[in-house]
Parts: sequence; C-alpha cells; structure tokens
Amino acid sequence: MEIGLIGLGKMGYNLALNLSDHGHRVVGTDAGQVEATDAFEIVSTLEDVVNGLAATRVVWTMVPAGDITEAVLAELFDKLEPGDIVIDGGNSNYKLSVARAEQFAEKGISFFDCGTSGGTEGARHGACTMVGGDADAWPVIEPIFKDLSVKNGYLYTGPAGSGHFLKMIHNGIEYGMMQAIAEGFDILEKSPFDYDYEQVARVWNHGSVVRSWLMELTENAFHKDAKLDEIKGVMHSSGEGKWTVETALDLQAAAPVIALSLMMRYRSLEDDTFTGKVVAALRNEFGGHAVVKK
Amino acid sequence: MEIGLIGLGKMGYNLALNLSDHGHRVVGTDAGQVEATDAFEIVSTLEDVVNGLAATRVVWTMVPAGDITEAVLAELFDKLEPGDIVIDGGNSNYKLSVARAEQFAEKGISFFDCGTSGGTEGARHGACTMVGGDADAWPVIEPIFKDLSVKNGYLYTGPAGSGHFLKMIHNGIEYGMMQAIAEGFDILEKSPFDYDYEQVARVWNHGSVVRSWLMELTENAFHKDAKLDEIKGVMHSSGEGKWTVETALDLQAAAPVIALSLMMRYRSLEDDTFTGKVVAALRNEFGGHAVVKK
Repeated sequence: MEIGLIGLGKMGYNLALNLSDHGHRVVGTDAGQVEATDAFEIVSTLEDVVNGLAATRVVWTMVPAGDITEAVLAELFDKLEPGDIVIDGGNSNYKLSVARAEQFAEKGISFFDCGTSGGTEGARHGACTMVGGDADAWPVIEPIFKDLSVKNGYLYTGPAGSGHFLKMIHNGIEYGMMQAIAEGFDILEKSPFDYDYEQVARVWNHGSVVRSWLMELTENAFHKDAKLDEIKGVMHSSGEGKWTVETALDLQAAAPVIALSLMMRYRSLEDDTFTGKVVAALRNEFGGHAVVKK
Repeated sequence: MEIGLIGLGKMGYNLALNLSDHGHRVVGTDAGQVEATDAFEIVSTLEDVVNGLAATRVVWTMVPAGDITEAVLAELFDKLEPGDIVIDGGNSNYKLSVARAEQFAEKGISFFDCGTSGGTEGARHGACTMVGGDADAWPVIEPIFKDLSVKNGYLYTGPAGSGHFLKMIHNGIEYGMMQAIAEGFDILEKSPFDYDYEQVARVWNHGSVVRSWLMELTENAFHKDAKLDEIKGVMHSSGEGKWTVETALDLQAAAPVIALSLMMRYRSLEDDTFTGKVVAALRNEFGGHAVVKK
C-alpha cells in the first residue's frame, strides 16, 4: 500500500522503516531534520505528503499528543478528500479521538485512533497496536497493522476512541506493574541480605509468576548499573497514567494501585514536600515532637 | 542423587516426578493418600524416608508453612544426622528460616530455605527456585536445583533466610502486578466501549510493554469465561503478601502499591463494610446526607 507518515521521530521513523520492509511505499515528513534513507521517501511538508499519495490516501500521524497533533490533524482535515483515511498513532486522549472522528466523518474521511506499544524497538521490528474507528473502513487498513505488528499483535477495538482508550489503560497497568516491581526491589535494598539484583531479575524471568518484559528490562537496567548508582529516582510521566486515573474517577472505578503509582511519581519529583512540613509541624504542635530545621 | 521428599501434595508430587525424570532417586512420603507411581518410591513415614536414604542424606520438605512445617522439621531435627542436608521448599517466613538454620547448624545439619515459583506446572516441568543457606554445602545440592528448574531458573541467594525472603518479595510484586492488571480491566468493564477481554489480553501479550505470564493467565481466564460471570471477586491470600507488607513496615520501606494490593484483597472478603457504615453515618451527621438503610 501507499502510506503517508507525518512525524518521523523515534517512533515514526522506525515505523516507516518497518512498513518499507514489508513492501509498502511510505512518503514521510517531519518538522525537524531527518536522516536520509533509501528505504522511504522524505518530503518537505504535509502538503507534499498529501500530494505524493494516490487516492484513496492513508495518512498516519505520529507526532506528540496535544497541540502538535491538533495542528497536524487540522491541516489534514483541510487538505484530505472524502474517502481518505487518517490514523492518529500518537497517545492522544481518547475523548479527543472520539470528537475528531466525528469531525472527519462530516467530510467523509475515516479517522482511526491507534494506540501503539512496544517502544522504538517494537515500531521497528514489530509493534503492538490497538485500533479504533470506522468498522467499514477497517479492512482497507488492516494489512498495514498486520504487517507492522508482531504476530497476533494488533486488534481492531471498536468505534473511534476505543483504540486510544485501550492504550491508555495499558499504560495505567504499566504504571502499577512498574511501581510494584520497584517497591519489591526497594525492600530488597533495605533488607539484611545482599542480593545481586541483576541475578534476582534474571531468575525471576525464568519460570516465576512475575516473569514479564518489564522484568527483562529490569534485568537489563541492573546489568548496566548494578545498584542504579548513576541515576536519580525521579519518575516523570507523560500523561497517560493521569488520564487513566481521571477516567477511573469519571467511571467511579476503584483503581487505588494505579492511582498511587501515579502519585508516587509526583512525590518523586520533589526533594522535600509541603506535606512533610505540615505533618512535622502538627506533630510538634500536639506532642512537642522534634522537627528537622532547615 | 538421592532425595527424600516430605509432602507429596500438588507441588511435592510434581517435584518428585520432575526429579525422577532427571535420574534422581526420590523417596517420598505424605500424611494423606497419594497416587501410586513407578517414577519414585512412596513410603509410609518420615522415618522410612530417613532410613531409606544413604548418608549424606538430602531431605526436601514440601508441606504447608506453619505448624505442619514446624512439626516436620522438628522430627527431621531428631532423626537426621550431622552432615545431612534439609531443604524447606515451602513458603515459610524467612525469620523462621534464619532461626531454623541456626538450630540445625548446632547439630551439624545444613538447612536451606528454598522459595519455589511457577506453580504446579513449574514444579513438574521446570520451576523457578531461590535458595538460601550454607555456602559450603550449596555445591552438594546445586545439581538438584539445576535439574528441576527451568534453564537459568535457579539462584543461590546467600545465607539462610535469603531464599524465602526473596520468594516473599516476589509474591509481594505479584500482588501489585495482579491488582494493576485487574484495575485496568475493571476500568475497561466500566468504559463506554465493548471490548473482548480475551482479545485485549491476547494483543497485550504480543509486543506490548505489559506482556507477561500473568497477562497470559489473564488471556486464559477470559478464554474460559469471557466476563468471568461464573466466579465472585473474592480475593483470598496465603500470607506472603502480608509478610511483605510487614517487612516493608519493619524496614521503613514505602511500598504503598503492594500494601494496597493486600488491603484490596481484604476488602474483597467483605460484602458490606464497617468502614462504609462509619463514613455513611458521618456524612449523615454533618450534612444530613441520606444513608442506605438495611
């Protein structure tokens, strides 16, 4: 097939190579500088991408969620024609994807929201994709997902929004799993025993109940730095965990572990906390307990 | 080698078959009725096991943690001789294992605490084992663990107690991972979309960040019962999660996700809660908010 690709960053570039490997003709563009390649065509502008494709056009956006995705989709809305297909492969909020699908449908354009997991390695050699959108147009683009995903690694999830929703929940689960793994190693680190964490992760990856890709990554990390001495325990987040918790609140779903995983990330961003000051001050007020002075 | 096995339940019986497959001579006993087999020798009493082995004896106990393990180990302490080796393969509390190793050492008997993961399937075809105990005696029994574990699936963890400690933390992580997965599916179930959960777990197992053995078990469970209509959401626990949280408290380790995973299990055991009554009563007291009457 012919596929336009807007955004050739770490994910988009690898997806383009992956699609090219599978015999698809990719026409891509990026706002920044991109390494030249024989594998696919790189053009200057979004308009070049649209003009470089034969109808029915399929255009995949792989740009950061938020303003950039908004701008790219707005431009695509202007330049694409009825019958064309747009796939948002970024981590957009599912509510926006629902709204965008409705907007594109008014112009006769099918909008798909695709959650993509597996990192850059997955993008290059086999991703995990969850795709929501128009059921009638799905068979047109299914070959793309079959080719770029690992075997059994793609799913048509239902109407627009359901792909990004599912990816959001995937990320929420990921937050909880990562925090659980990390807490376990933290207790080991405070224990009276002297474990080799790489070996611990290695043995847990062979036959145990907690064997998982995340535990394999844990093994890799401890292999590189046995006690993680070289990094700080600052845990940033990119928004999907927050959306998962907001969604749990909207749906009145009790999801304390995912919520706390997110809160612990926020806690990690602060060296000292106002919470700590308030509690210390109150202990001092009612019981005369010592406070730590600055 | 020759191995005595005390306890031929689901785990012990499968371990005996596994060891037998690898050419070891197993002499086993169980307090209950056990299916006869040509694979290994089943005798009537613990004493028969001890008498049925040539010195240096290696005796593995695979009985429930607590009183039964205590009784079996006490009898082994009486009947075994200096130079013999005891392996507790159950889920004993690591503090007891530290104390037991000291006690056995007084009589010249080496005590090992072995955490075993991977369920009955692992016991039969390749387990994950974490073994603490006397470093000098470890090479004597290492061949057993090499044979019954999956490749790369055994680890000598250090002094006595460190094996059961590591298995305990493994189970704590397992609690957190399971709760995170479950909360994710709970949000999906309350969402406006209509997902096929077996397909969701399947796609997440192929290329995604959360791919894991637990997610494979999730796929199996939804394959058998698409909405889990046939079971109640009652989550029992067998003690290792509680020990992990107690240990986190002792070590002043912040492990909120593992702790909450345990608390949510406790919550699931109650249809109605006293907590709920108290909060409802207080809302009524201060704001006149309606309570649900019995």
